[in-house]
Amino acid sequence: MAIPQAARSGDKTRLTGRLTIEAGDPAIDFDPVQIREIQPDDMDSVWQILEPTIRAGETYALPRDMTRGAALDYWTGSDRHCFVATDGGRIAGTYYLRANQLGGGAHVCNCGYMTAPESRGRGVGRAMFDHSVRQARARGFAAMQFNFVVSTNAAAVTLWQSLGFSIVGVLPAAFEHPTHGRVDAFVMFRAL
Amino acid sequence: MAIPQAARSGDKTRLTGRLTIEAGDPAIDFDPVQIREIQPDDMDSVWQILEPTIRAGETYALPRDMTRGAALDYWTGSDRHCFVATDGGRIAGTYYLRANQLGGGAHVCNCGYMTAPESRGRGVGRAMFDHSVRQARARGFAAMQFNFVVSTNAAAVTLWQSLGFSIVGVLPAAFEHPTHGRVDAFVMFRAL
Repeated sequence: MAIPQAARSGDKTRLTGRLTIEAGDPAIDFDPVQIREIQPDDMDSVWQILEPTIRAGETYALPRDMTRGAALDYWTGSDRHCFVATDGGRIAGTYYLRANQLGGGAHVCNCGYMTAPESRGRGVGRAMFDHSVRQARARGFAAMQFNFVVSTNAAAVTLWQSLGFSIVGVLPAAFEHPTHGRVDAFVMFRAL
Repeated sequence: MAIPQAARSGDKTRLTGRLTIEAGDPAIDFDPVQIREIQPDDMDSVWQILEPTIRAGETYALPRDMTRGAALDYWTGSDRHCFVATDGGRIAGTYYLRANQLGGGAHVCNCGYMTAPESRGRGVGRAMFDHSVRQARARGFAAMQFNFVVSTNAAAVTLWQSLGFSIVGVLPAAFEHPTHGRVDAFVMFRAL
């Protein structure tokens, strides 16, 4: 079936008229994933997303006992732009975008993404990634770099490779995994 | 000739007795390079070392127009230990040591070193590096990583390789060199 453009794009314009919903049409979603800049009122929701990943300590090089305040200061720091993804109006993911280096390295950006466990498989991560690429290009970045992709996080490595990233560096035994011990971390890179 | 141990080691113990200085003996130096933690009074001297390198913009990914305050905040930040090297009592170099990542990545350290132009070739850099390795080991670090060695900085690349570092990553065109344009940067790594 034809989907009104407003619904496809996530535009909040009210749809009028009658719509026939066909069973099995996966494109029907009147409130798809939307991305916006973080607001002060989002902090509780963002912390709910960050906390389980930080506590697990398997994918991000952040202290497992990091406090809420320290984690939010890190994730939403003044050196970065922070966004949230909403799914059905609820915050389902968050990401940040920043320059990876200063000065002569400031044309390469760095991002971090986290999706709420209950929202996985709904395209939230992909929507955030697409948004981040558009944001990065609009801000003049020429490339994107991930400094520390834990090698045992196979889902992430595979995902980034499918999205055009290459492993450009291998940091030997640079990550202390809570169950696997010291494992390699990858530096991943793609042009924009 | 025999050099009193106190002079060799840089010990400040006053030497007594008569010493015959033989021409051409390169080991004669009663006040060799010494390393100590930075003090508040050192900031002017440290800025004099940082400024020309930052202004040149050829080796560090720092803004060429970085202010004195921003540069000193960066170099002596609360996330790092900062040291100065003195040569004949004058500050001739400075370096910092910090954890390169948090959490599961906190066993790998990162350092930055700068030597005053007029003090090059006097062993200041090497003394700082040796000191940093001892400091890093004493603090429990298992490895040292340089995140961003500009590929055109051949002297640095060669030096680090001679000191046991390997190039473990190549960041394509990640550094905007003021005269060479966009050039690669290397990630370099060594176990401690």
